[in-house]
Amino acid sequence: MRKLLNNLLVACAVVGFFSLVGCSSQNDPDKQLSQVFQQGQLAPAQFFTGNAYVIGMVSSDSVFTTAAGEVYFEAGARSNWHLHPSGQILIVTSGVGYHQLIGEPIELIHKGDVVKCPPNVLHWHGASKDSAMSHIYIVPNIEKGIVEWKQPVTEEEYLTVND
Amino acid sequence: MRKLLNNLLVACAVVGFFSLVGCSSQNDPDKQLSQVFQQGQLAPAQFFTGNAYVIGMVSSDSVFTTAAGEVYFEAGARSNWHLHPSGQILIVTSGVGYHQLIGEPIELIHKGDVVKCPPNVLHWHGASKDSAMSHIYIVPNIEKGIVEWKQPVTEEEYLTVND
Repeated sequence: MRKLLNNLLVACAVVGFFSLVGCSSQNDPDKQLSQVFQQGQLAPAQFFTGNAYVIGMVSSDSVFTTAAGEVYFEAGARSNWHLHPSGQILIVTSGVGYHQLIGEPIELIHKGDVVKCPPNVLHWHGASKDSAMSHIYIVPNIEKGIVEWKQPVTEEEYLTVND
Repeated sequence: MRKLLNNLLVACAVVGFFSLVGCSSQNDPDKQLSQVFQQGQLAPAQFFTGNAYVIGMVSSDSVFTTAAGEVYFEAGARSNWHLHPSGQILIVTSGVGYHQLIGEPIELIHKGDVVKCPPNVLHWHGASKDSAMSHIYIVPNIEKGIVEWKQPVTEEEYLTVND
């Protein structure tokens, strides 16, 4: 029970890698989120376009070296371009979204899809133009680093999608 | 798109560590599963008591060294005792379940709870007596090994729960 309480406290503290970039605490209780866990904190505008809500669920430690959580993107919202030194795994939990590796076309992603973002490859992910999207993220081996944020995804880049 | 298709094929192939223990293909289309991804394959009776349905979503590889997927347990169903050389992270996605580390009392777990099972510590997890439960599992650093299965959780052990 002690362990479970500790884990709950960890989950509630909004840990995971997003905690490292300073999520704000502006919840919107009226929002009808469709992700698994029905909560989250507004992601920082310097790293996201539009509204994304983040719940960091698994804080990394020296034993598990893994961070995990969930992100909900409103329609049109997306992350900046970014990379992970040890890569990132996404599991789409609701909706329809986009994912793009640098130099490749935008991929449509749907609930149940799994995406592996290779280490040190610039990429972004977010909702589609017309539908919200949520995904679980898993960042393995974070002793190598967690995330490096880059420039926003422009409207021109976002609208190159072929859906 | 090629990468996405590859990932979808991987997900559909029911990979992850459960594929290593030989899940059967006896789906039950009438079952109203409440987990995230609404599908799965019946887990093998030699490692589970009652009906559990497994979807292996993320196969490990030398880059990510992480396996992940989801398991749905009908009420009363549970895994055998087992351990993971590099530990395991559970994220409860629906229902109410039990989790127990060897030598400790059974913990109740609910949707949104995160449980870290330490490396090489015998444990089991499953649904509660009266409610189904589903969880995502993450097994990090599987170059150290994935799972070692042990004996079933007896009715006597299962009924020690204090809920």
